[in-house]
Amino acid sequence: MENSIIQQLINCVGTTNVLIDGDLTTYELDWRQRARGKAMAIVRPKNTQEVAQIVKLCIDFNRANPKQKISIVPQGGNTGLVVGSTPDNSGTQIVISLQRMNHVRHIDAPNASITVEAGCVLQSLQTRAEESGFLFPLSLGAEGSCTIGGNLGTNAGGTQVLRYGNTRELCLGLEVVTPDGEIWEGLTGLRKDNTGYDLRNLFIGSEGTLGIITAATMKLFPLPQSTICAWVSVDNLNQALRLLQLSQKHLGAGLTGFEMMGEFALSLVRKHFSQLHMPLEKDSPYAVLVEYSGQETEGQAHSQLENLLEKAIEEGCALDAVVTENISQTKSLWHIRENITFAQAQEGLNIKHDISIPISSIPAFVERTDAELLANFPKVRIVNFGHLGDGNLHYNVQAPNDEDREIFLIEKEALVNSVVYESVAFFGGSISAEHGVGSLKVNTLPKYKSAVALNMMRSIKRALDSENLMNPGRVINI
Amino acid sequence: MENSIIQQLINCVGTTNVLIDGDLTTYELDWRQRARGKAMAIVRPKNTQEVAQIVKLCIDFNRANPKQKISIVPQGGNTGLVVGSTPDNSGTQIVISLQRMNHVRHIDAPNASITVEAGCVLQSLQTRAEESGFLFPLSLGAEGSCTIGGNLGTNAGGTQVLRYGNTRELCLGLEVVTPDGEIWEGLTGLRKDNTGYDLRNLFIGSEGTLGIITAATMKLFPLPQSTICAWVSVDNLNQALRLLQLSQKHLGAGLTGFEMMGEFALSLVRKHFSQLHMPLEKDSPYAVLVEYSGQETEGQAHSQLENLLEKAIEEGCALDAVVTENISQTKSLWHIRENITFAQAQEGLNIKHDISIPISSIPAFVERTDAELLANFPKVRIVNFGHLGDGNLHYNVQAPNDEDREIFLIEKEALVNSVVYESVAFFGGSISAEHGVGSLKVNTLPKYKSAVALNMMRSIKRALDSENLMNPGRVINI
Repeated sequence: MENSIIQQLINCVGTTNVLIDGDLTTYELDWRQRARGKAMAIVRPKNTQEVAQIVKLCIDFNRANPKQKISIVPQGGNTGLVVGSTPDNSGTQIVISLQRMNHVRHIDAPNASITVEAGCVLQSLQTRAEESGFLFPLSLGAEGSCTIGGNLGTNAGGTQVLRYGNTRELCLGLEVVTPDGEIWEGLTGLRKDNTGYDLRNLFIGSEGTLGIITAATMKLFPLPQSTICAWVSVDNLNQALRLLQLSQKHLGAGLTGFEMMGEFALSLVRKHFSQLHMPLEKDSPYAVLVEYSGQETEGQAHSQLENLLEKAIEEGCALDAVVTENISQTKSLWHIRENITFAQAQEGLNIKHDISIPISSIPAFVERTDAELLANFPKVRIVNFGHLGDGNLHYNVQAPNDEDREIFLIEKEALVNSVVYESVAFFGGSISAEHGVGSLKVNTLPKYKSAVALNMMRSIKRALDSENLMNPGRVINI
Repeated sequence: MENSIIQQLINCVGTTNVLIDGDLTTYELDWRQRARGKAMAIVRPKNTQEVAQIVKLCIDFNRANPKQKISIVPQGGNTGLVVGSTPDNSGTQIVISLQRMNHVRHIDAPNASITVEAGCVLQSLQTRAEESGFLFPLSLGAEGSCTIGGNLGTNAGGTQVLRYGNTRELCLGLEVVTPDGEIWEGLTGLRKDNTGYDLRNLFIGSEGTLGIITAATMKLFPLPQSTICAWVSVDNLNQALRLLQLSQKHLGAGLTGFEMMGEFALSLVRKHFSQLHMPLEKDSPYAVLVEYSGQETEGQAHSQLENLLEKAIEEGCALDAVVTENISQTKSLWHIRENITFAQAQEGLNIKHDISIPISSIPAFVERTDAELLANFPKVRIVNFGHLGDGNLHYNVQAPNDEDREIFLIEKEALVNSVVYESVAFFGGSISAEHGVGSLKVNTLPKYKSAVALNMMRSIKRALDSENLMNPGRVINI
């Protein structure tokens, strides 16, 4: 029986594009190495028609074999952080890898849009946009290997959200293969279209549980003429918030990044990457990376940002600040920020959180959660950093210095999560700001999301995927 | 039987808030006076709990009286343009007017958000935002009487979409009464929240067919320090498009308006509002209103916009241009633009379209459609204007000068619409850019939208509103 579907898949996409033997780690092991599954096959279609055919083959197989049902896991770059794109252990799942579908179909300059296939790597998309004189602003750590289909499936965030929005806000249209094996041709380049329910946004962020995104039309923006940064030291998070408000007021849409880094997070960077030069001599409880970019000249941008920082120091929203003089200095500031993740990894295993809080409540959230964690887990070390400008903290928890990291992780993760999530809920926040739900949080979500919302999600899943063919067990259990 | 439900409604919201007699024109006649219905009652709840109770009363009534089913029409300011918020003629519909629920619940300045009830008038919301030092950028003709609930229900557009997006993009969270009479408390002020399907965007633009929006948390933006405009004459739409591209490149996010007006549209303004002063002496085939706003000083904004226009004339993207010197000049330019609608009304009945086209195809669309209309309806007069910056044209058709307007409308509307919509479809556009579907376009939509999309819409409607209680016959027929 299994042989028959494999043969049909081979007939559809060719022998070399149906992987069943050998080392399939790339496809079966999740990015954070938290789960390894076993697929029935990895299938690599080359176009949308093949994707639709594969779905139809699976539907037919399930109709003929109701007791041996198979299901589908769509996969892009497999860099997701919530175990959402790898197969389970059952051996009954077909992974559809979109990686061969990586073409840019069309750049429409007057419409400021680009149409790409789902398997296009984010960095290639950025490069192609830049070659045409545009900015594609989505930017995140995995950009060298993640795909736009995966970014859409998870509604990826990143560092430019406060100005350009999440992946959702960057998308104008989608092409999707539905759980019925139909192709929805929704690749519009329109900025206004009020002809019915917002199907596009329903698929975005649904993590492959409602269908397979095969292509997308994305917005492009003018390339900024100048991009400069400042590194600002602040005493506490209330001060950082006041700096954010002042920055928004003075820089408007020019404020394209506002990253917060706690002193302990930066101390790990100093410890493990001692070659990196810290921009300010004196350490402070928190540092903020402010990015300003726009269509002004470098000179204008400079004086705009310097005026802001003078005012900030004057008004007590900042202790000290330095502005970058050139692009290499700007890059090196971002380098420090991005190295926090790697420094944490060097320091050993840690418990990661991807949470968001209404920005106004962040100081109170951190004060309360820090205190509760330290009360429950003495000497625990908190690596607090994140996209303060959009309320998204990566509030991570590292074992006490003298404890074994692995044992701490195994023994304490659930308890630590529960302290953090209860506090998130108290302040009306989200337990997954930009990474999604996957299978990692599918059983936790019902504790923190309203039953009314979960019921609607379940109804929608059943309505569009009545056979539970698409990425079952992710996002919502039905 | 009918009496029993009326009595229950009175028990719920009080006698004065259940209207059954007298002149109910305000609630029963649609804004464009294209349809007049007859409601069983107009009910005016004062809070979300009452809305939920009303829905439950209707559910109970329908269970007890399966042969006399009633349904619900949610209504805000009743300024919609597609007959979506008035009752039908059956006398079996309950209009739930949200107008009494008009409070601002909360302004969160550090989070740059405002939480308001659905019945809050758009202009009040703008004013409240401004009083707190913020801009709420949604702006449209009916802002003095439309409500934010209606704006969300129809995903209203307006003149600032190229910079700030549609109503959809301005919303952070919703509170909704579902077709089961449950309250979904989704009033988050979060900018990142990836915990499942995007219910918020599903309700936005669903025109009350999936539930009743009772409150919303909306984004606020910094108040611009300066706002100036230019009036630019261009020879043709290709030139206008090149001006748009140049403006985006030079002004970036500072480009907050880009409105196009055809000469015939402006000639109607000159004819019917002769007191209005045209900013440039010489007429041209098209004029463009460019708005620039941001955090620079007036002086900086001026030189930025003047530099752009010099370059535009140099590069042949503009014939002539004038920049406003003060706020009253800026207002008077917008006044001309806004008076096109009233000038058309003075000129007599006309056939209105609210269409969008990928911006790059607009010149070809207009050339083709103008030609086809003139071939089919000799001497017909085309009032072409709209939000060129986001691809949304109000491409209206006025009877030939020597024909009776009313007879032309009655005899030719369907044919004119079909010429225009076929052309829209040819260029991959939308037959409803910002006004929605309502009952006006519910039967036309299936000709221009894919069956796959319509089927998904139908499945979603059935999944969330299995009894077809909410605004039946609007958006999608099931």
